[in-house]
Amino acid sequence: MSEYSELGHDAATVGIVAKKYFTFAAPPHTLELESGARIGPVTIAYETYGTLAPDRRNAVLVLHALSGDSHVAGVYTPQDEKPGWWDCMVGPGKGIDTDRFFVVCSNVIGSCMGSTGPASTHPATGKPYGLEFPVVTIGDMVAAQKALVDHLGIAQLLCVVGGSIGGMQVLEWCVRYPQMVVAAIPLATTMRHSALAIAFNEVARQSIMADPHWNHGDYYGGPKPALGLAVARMIGHITYLSDESMRLKFGRRLQDKSDFSFNFDADFQVESYLRYQGRKFVDRFDANSFLYITKAADYFDLGQQHGGGSDVKACSKARAKFLVISFTSDWLYPTYQARSIVTALKKCGRDVSFCEIEAQWGHDAFLIPGARLKSLIHGFLQRVHDELRA
Amino acid sequence: MSEYSELGHDAATVGIVAKKYFTFAAPPHTLELESGARIGPVTIAYETYGTLAPDRRNAVLVLHALSGDSHVAGVYTPQDEKPGWWDCMVGPGKGIDTDRFFVVCSNVIGSCMGSTGPASTHPATGKPYGLEFPVVTIGDMVAAQKALVDHLGIAQLLCVVGGSIGGMQVLEWCVRYPQMVVAAIPLATTMRHSALAIAFNEVARQSIMADPHWNHGDYYGGPKPALGLAVARMIGHITYLSDESMRLKFGRRLQDKSDFSFNFDADFQVESYLRYQGRKFVDRFDANSFLYITKAADYFDLGQQHGGGSDVKACSKARAKFLVISFTSDWLYPTYQARSIVTALKKCGRDVSFCEIEAQWGHDAFLIPGARLKSLIHGFLQRVHDELRA
Repeated sequence: MSEYSELGHDAATVGIVAKKYFTFAAPPHTLELESGARIGPVTIAYETYGTLAPDRRNAVLVLHALSGDSHVAGVYTPQDEKPGWWDCMVGPGKGIDTDRFFVVCSNVIGSCMGSTGPASTHPATGKPYGLEFPVVTIGDMVAAQKALVDHLGIAQLLCVVGGSIGGMQVLEWCVRYPQMVVAAIPLATTMRHSALAIAFNEVARQSIMADPHWNHGDYYGGPKPALGLAVARMIGHITYLSDESMRLKFGRRLQDKSDFSFNFDADFQVESYLRYQGRKFVDRFDANSFLYITKAADYFDLGQQHGGGSDVKACSKARAKFLVISFTSDWLYPTYQARSIVTALKKCGRDVSFCEIEAQWGHDAFLIPGARLKSLIHGFLQRVHDELRA
Repeated sequence: MSEYSELGHDAATVGIVAKKYFTFAAPPHTLELESGARIGPVTIAYETYGTLAPDRRNAVLVLHALSGDSHVAGVYTPQDEKPGWWDCMVGPGKGIDTDRFFVVCSNVIGSCMGSTGPASTHPATGKPYGLEFPVVTIGDMVAAQKALVDHLGIAQLLCVVGGSIGGMQVLEWCVRYPQMVVAAIPLATTMRHSALAIAFNEVARQSIMADPHWNHGDYYGGPKPALGLAVARMIGHITYLSDESMRLKFGRRLQDKSDFSFNFDADFQVESYLRYQGRKFVDRFDANSFLYITKAADYFDLGQQHGGGSDVKACSKARAKFLVISFTSDWLYPTYQARSIVTALKKCGRDVSFCEIEAQWGHDAFLIPGARLKSLIHGFLQRVHDELRA
């Protein structure tokens, strides 16, 4: 996720919010994962916005991407300079209107933003898990979210919505817990990673694992694999942009210079920008979590895991109404992949709308304020909300 | 450059060839570089194929890409399992017919395949240059090639041909030494790197420089920055392929397994392939050369450096007849960039043919045997050869 704050966002926010925690699966009642491994206790960091209606039928679950967290909107303190990662979409009168909907966003397991992950304490050793943390899947992340939703007393979600890896979770929710999902908005996502997407993730993982500070995942308390993680982030960052957006944003403009350095400093603005993004990421994200979440994304295959190899069979399990959205310049999850979702859903007679949004920002487009995206989501939520009550 | 030997190539080869060396610019007559720095002596490794005609008007200069070398065709010994990197194109009866043309291919300065580069001995210290080696440009590479061509007694090249960074050298030749170039074939190339191409190169360089064994370029005699270079190569390798070629070649096929490993081994074939490509590259290529050549490519800007910012003005210096070729699935140097070359050349009235070849192999397509590419190059060379003698 990039900084596009210069594009502005709607002023009204949800205001000050607080991170909350829900812990479950305390031993001996551990959570069984898709790999067969078990973990427990499991803590889920989450935030809520707006008010749950008396009939509990206005809940919207927002699912974040690779490096996201539960902090989807608002600020933690009045001094916070940056609001949550989808503040442009979630808030009073916004695309996901917190005056009408009760919004829940939780950090995925395997991450490092409050939920249980490789940096958490392994109860058996009292030390951070590191690579002792079991490999989790998109399905496992969703199973943990289900425990949170149960805990919140929500029997049915009006909508699950998310982009990128969050979009994979949306699809997983719809086929894993079909009776619990009224509507779904998978954005800029896919039913499975292409070889290209796996390749980028693998190279990023190799970069982390090549850093001697990574030390087979056992670096907590010592120096972090900062350089390896920074390169991994830079690789990812390129895939979130597009040829066009990079041309518009950077072109070949030089960094504070009238000529080339003729050395290996950052000559071009795009180089400085990537170096900065890499450094900044290291401060806020755990390298092992990067490994685990990208692996979960690579493993995800809706048709394989829920349809015995058939996307149509997998999609036939879903009961939700769908709004599928892709972006023209997204080359990580190109529109043809979104169309595959739509085709599979239509083949089993599902209620599905599809929109490919003209956007120059590449994969990141789903995070960027845009009237078209806002109105699409706003209108869809209103429709499914009205239909539910009709 | 990838392995596509399974696609086969024409059987006839130039047979056994030998690498030769030409050394010039011995102090005090050093070579002045575009940066203002000077180096000398400069050695150029080169190979020749076929016979120079008595009138010396049948010479074709082939220019290699990032990791290429002078060994464009044939084998060094009868036991060699792999012929030169463009053996499918250069040989008796092939696209560049060595029965008719005298083919020259030299290793660029800055490389590590026999020409002077950062791994060469610094005459002032008796030790490898490392980062003491001056940053060279595409123009410097071409200036060194010009010295070799002069040395060979060739006043005019019938054709200069090359893909990728080799294509940049083709363009540079045409505007730097216009009277020496009768015809030119820039393939899968650009007049300047986009921000996207710079970004990929920069991340690859960061990966090398993040490896502690890199040691600010001073690693000769000690352990190489193998892991950093391997990741750099993997990044590059992805950009040489395409979404489609990777889907066809790998898809989501697993590596020797019926199920996921649920650890960080290579699960998918594409992961194993990239790891293998990375490891293999480390054996044959110098990390510092990777830094220098990618920097040269990023700096290259035909319009800026030869036209004061105008591509048309730069192209107006050229006298050659052009055959510009791009490939549909090349997203590193997409067809729109080739069209820019064609447009600029046409605006100044140059003789230019353009062909976009339908190909699934991405940027690597120019290296892969194909009847269409072969016949285009063959026909163009025959035409310009006939016109020269008409």
